[in-house]
Amino acid sequence: MFLKNCWYVAAWNHELGDASLARTLLGEPVVFFRDADGAPAALEDRCSHRSAPLSNGTVEGDNIRCGYHGLLFGRDGGCREVPGQSTVPPGSAIRSYPVIEKWRWIWIWMGDPAQADEKLIPDFHWNDDPEWVSQGDRFHVGGDYRLLVDNLLDLSHVQYVHASTLGTEAVSDFPVETRRDGDLVHVDRWIMDGPPPPMFQKAAGITGEVDRWQLITWNAPSHVVIDVGCAAAGTGARQGNRDQGMTMYSNHSITPETEKSCHYFWHHARNFNLEDEDLTAFLRKATGGAFFEDVDIIERQQKSIDSAPDDFIMVDINADGGVLQASRILDRLISEETA
Amino acid sequence: MFLKNCWYVAAWNHELGDASLARTLLGEPVVFFRDADGAPAALEDRCSHRSAPLSNGTVEGDNIRCGYHGLLFGRDGGCREVPGQSTVPPGSAIRSYPVIEKWRWIWIWMGDPAQADEKLIPDFHWNDDPEWVSQGDRFHVGGDYRLLVDNLLDLSHVQYVHASTLGTEAVSDFPVETRRDGDLVHVDRWIMDGPPPPMFQKAAGITGEVDRWQLITWNAPSHVVIDVGCAAAGTGARQGNRDQGMTMYSNHSITPETEKSCHYFWHHARNFNLEDEDLTAFLRKATGGAFFEDVDIIERQQKSIDSAPDDFIMVDINADGGVLQASRILDRLISEETA
Amino acid sequence: MFLKNCWYVAAWNHELGDASLARTLLGEPVVFFRDADGAPAALEDRCSHRSAPLSNGTVEGDNIRCGYHGLLFGRDGGCREVPGQSTVPPGSAIRSYPVIEKWRWIWIWMGDPAQADEKLIPDFHWNDDPEWVSQGDRFHVGGDYRLLVDNLLDLSHVQYVHASTLGTEAVSDFPVETRRDGDLVHVDRWIMDGPPPPMFQKAAGITGEVDRWQLITWNAPSHVVIDVGCAAAGTGARQGNRDQGMTMYSNHSITPETEKSCHYFWHHARNFNLEDEDLTAFLRKATGGAFFEDVDIIERQQKSIDSAPDDFIMVDINADGGVLQASRILDRLISEETA
Repeated sequence: MFLKNCWYVAAWNHELGDASLARTLLGEPVVFFRDADGAPAALEDRCSHRSAPLSNGTVEGDNIRCGYHGLLFGRDGGCREVPGQSTVPPGSAIRSYPVIEKWRWIWIWMGDPAQADEKLIPDFHWNDDPEWVSQGDRFHVGGDYRLLVDNLLDLSHVQYVHASTLGTEAVSDFPVETRRDGDLVHVDRWIMDGPPPPMFQKAAGITGEVDRWQLITWNAPSHVVIDVGCAAAGTGARQGNRDQGMTMYSNHSITPETEKSCHYFWHHARNFNLEDEDLTAFLRKATGGAFFEDVDIIERQQKSIDSAPDDFIMVDINADGGVLQASRILDRLISEETA
Repeated sequence: MFLKNCWYVAAWNHELGDASLARTLLGEPVVFFRDADGAPAALEDRCSHRSAPLSNGTVEGDNIRCGYHGLLFGRDGGCREVPGQSTVPPGSAIRSYPVIEKWRWIWIWMGDPAQADEKLIPDFHWNDDPEWVSQGDRFHVGGDYRLLVDNLLDLSHVQYVHASTLGTEAVSDFPVETRRDGDLVHVDRWIMDGPPPPMFQKAAGITGEVDRWQLITWNAPSHVVIDVGCAAAGTGARQGNRDQGMTMYSNHSITPETEKSCHYFWHHARNFNLEDEDLTAFLRKATGGAFFEDVDIIERQQKSIDSAPDDFIMVDINADGGVLQASRILDRLISEETA
Repeated sequence: MFLKNCWYVAAWNHELGDASLARTLLGEPVVFFRDADGAPAALEDRCSHRSAPLSNGTVEGDNIRCGYHGLLFGRDGGCREVPGQSTVPPGSAIRSYPVIEKWRWIWIWMGDPAQADEKLIPDFHWNDDPEWVSQGDRFHVGGDYRLLVDNLLDLSHVQYVHASTLGTEAVSDFPVETRRDGDLVHVDRWIMDGPPPPMFQKAAGITGEVDRWQLITWNAPSHVVIDVGCAAAGTGARQGNRDQGMTMYSNHSITPETEKSCHYFWHHARNFNLEDEDLTAFLRKATGGAFFEDVDIIERQQKSIDSAPDDFIMVDINADGGVLQASRILDRLISEETA
C-alpha cells in the first residue's frame, strides 16, 4: 500500500521534451506530455477505447492522440475526438493527475486531486537556486522504496557499503540524536573538533580542525534531505552560525514504481566553489557512484527478503532509531488514508 | 477458453521438412512430422513414459522415437515399441490430432477428432491458386489472439498504426456496413468515384477516378479475409462486375499459442501483374512491415490490459460494429462447445 | 519436500577459497566461508538485522561481516559485534549448518544439527584416493533433482541421449537385476563374453572378449555410484575376481537448489593408466560432454512436465525397476521425517 495523497517526483524536467514520457508510478502507468504552453500534463497511460497505451501515440498541441484508433484526449483526461464519428461516447474520459514543475523536477499527485496543494511540495529549492550548484540523476531500483528510505535514515552503512567510494571512516562511532517534529523525523550527528571529512578535504581543500554535521530530515513518504557540512572548529556552527562553513546537501526523493521497484531521484548541491566545473564533475562521479552502490545493496536485500521464510523477523539495532520512527509515521499515514 | 472444434493453421507447409516441428497451440505442446509418404502428422509433444518432448527425438519412417529412452510412436499416437521389452504397456498411447495440408498451410483440429471434417477448413485458396500471386509469413505475437482479430475487423486503425507504411488516408471518414450472414461477419466499405488508393497507384499505376472497396469477412474463431480493390469509376464494381478491377486479398488466420500469445499467419494475394517479381518483393516488404506494426501495438495493448485495474471497462465506438458482432458470436460458440 | 536429515554435497572444495561462496540449497540461501584454520563454515545467507545477504560482505578471520551495516557473525551463527553499540541484541544469531570437507567435496547437513553424524556421509573415496585418478565438475540443472536420479538409475537412456558421445550400443537389450539392500537400491547389468565396450577400447586398448558390468548403487536421497568395468572373459569377474579387470567409477551426487533446479556434482575415477594425462583429458571431455546431454534432456523434461495437464499420468516400463524402488524409499524417508 502506498501513500496516495502526497506529491511524488515523477521525472526530471529535462526528461520531458516534445514527445510523451511513459512511467509507471505506484503501480499505475502514467503518460506525461507538455501542452502547447510547455506545461506538463499527466494522464492514465491507457486509452478508454481498447486500452492501448497513449504514450505510443502523438502529442498534438494541448492534447495527446492514441496511436491505435486515433482517439484524442485533453490534459484533463476528457476525450476530445473519436475519428469517424461526430460525438464522443459517454465514459470515454480517462484519469488525469495534478502535475507541477518545480525545482527541476516534475511532481505528481496520485491521490484525490482536490487535495493537491502546491504548498505541500517538500522543499528541494537547492536543486534550482543560484546560490547553489546542484547535479543529480535518476536510478531505477529493483526494490521496495521503503528499503531505500531506511538506507538514507541510517548512515552507519556508509562505512561498509561505500568503503571504496566515500571511505572507511567510522562515523558510526559518533552518536546520533533522533527527533520527531510533527511528522518530520530528524537524525542529527555532530562530530566536534576533529579532522575534516575526506570528501571536504578533497573538494574544498580544508585542512584544519573542524566541527562536522550530518543532519538528516525525513518527510513522508520518501523525501530525505541530508545537510552535510563542516566549519572551522569553535566558530559556533552547532549553535547555528554556518557563515564560515561549507555545506553539501545530499537530497533524495524516492517514488514507488511497483511494490518491489522504485525510481530514485537525487541531487547533490554545494554552496562553495560554485564556478569550479572540475569539482562539479568530480562530485557527480563520486556521488553517482556511491548511490549506485546503494542501488546494488537494496536489490540484493530485496531478493533476500523475498526468499526469507514467513516467520523471519528482522532484528533492530541502536542505529535504527530514525528508521523506526519514520516507518511508524508512514504506516500511520497510510492507515489513516485508507481508513 | 478456446474454441476447440474447428481448424486452426498450425504452420506454413514449408516449415515442416524432414525433421519434426514443435509448436504450442491452444496451450498444448504439439509435435509435427511427416510420415514416409510426406503426409503431416501431429502428436501431443510429450512421451507417455517420462514426459520428455518427442520433438527432441527422431523421425523414423511413419513414426517418431523419443530421444530419452527410445519409445516409438506412430502417427495415430500408438506406442509401437519400448526398447528392452517385447510388449508395450497399457496406457502408453498418446494423443494424436487430425491434420491436413491445404493451401500451403498445415491445418490442425484440436477438439473432438470425430468432428474433424476437411470441408470445414475455411477458404484460403488464394494462397495456392495459379490465378493469384501470394506471399506471406508467420509472426509470433505476445497478445491474446482475439485482440488481433479485433484489429482486423476495424480498419480505422490503419491511418494511425500504419501511417508510415500504408499512409495517412482518412478512409475511416467513409462509413462501413456491418452484416451478419449466419456466423460470418462482414464489414464492407465502398468509396465511390474518388482517387485510387496509394498502394494501387504505386503497385499498378492506376491514375483515373475509381470505385474502391474494403470487404472484410470474419469466420470463427479467427480467420479474416479482406478483399481490397478498385475498378474504374462507373464500371459497376459495386454491382458485382469486377472484370476491370484489381484485387489484393489480405488474408489472416490466427492461432492461439497460450491465453496471451498467438501465431499470426497471413498471406497477401493479387490478381494483376502476376509476373512482376519486383512488385511481389515490394508488396512483401510493405505488407510484412505493416503487419509487424500490428504485432507491436497488440503487444503494447496486451501489457496495458494486464496492468489495468479489475474494474476497467473498455468503451466502444461506432467503428466497433464488426468487432462486437464477431466477439458475440465467438463467445456463443465457445459457450455452446463447453456446455 | 526435501529430505533434510542427510548429507548433501554443497560444493567442490576448490570452489571455496578466501572469499565467501553463496549457494542456494534446498531452497535456502547459504553462505560458505573458511575460518582462520581453513575449515569450512556455513551460515544462513541473510543478516538478522535487515536481511542483506552476508555473501556480499567480507570474511574476517573466523567470522563474516555483513556488507550493509557491518554486523559480524561467527561460524556458529552468533552475532559477535554490532557497530556503534557495545552489546548485541537478543535474537540476532542466525542459523548455522554442520559442514564437513571430505573426498574433495564440502558436505552440508540441512536438517537437525544434532543428528549430523560424519559417518553418514556416503562413500565417495574414489574422488580422493591415490589408487584412483578422478576428475569431475558441477553442473547447474534447471530441473527437479529426482528427475536426474531417475536418469542415473535407468541406463537404457544412454543409447538415445548419448548416441553421439557414448555411442549407440544397445546395452538395454541385456537384462538388469534390481535389488534392495536395506534402503540401498542396486541395479546390476552383466554382459558376459562379448566385445569390450567402446570407451574401454578407446581408453585402455582392450581388444579381446570380455565380461562387462554396470553396477549402480543408489543411496538416499540422491547419491548414485556406478561401477562400470570389464575383465577378460572367463576370469571370474562376476564371481568377484576383478584383479584382471578395469573399472571406471561414474559417481554422482545431486543437491536440490529449489524444487525445480539442482546442483549436479559428479566425478569419474579410473584404476588403470593412472599416469596417462591425455587419457584423463579425453575422459574429462567425454564424460563432461555426456553428462551435459543429461542436463539438456532433464531441463526439457521438466518444462514438459510443467506444461502437462493435471491428470497426466506417466507410464512405467520394465527398465523402471530401480527408479520405482528408489522413489518409493525416498518418499517413505521424507514422509517419516516430516511426520
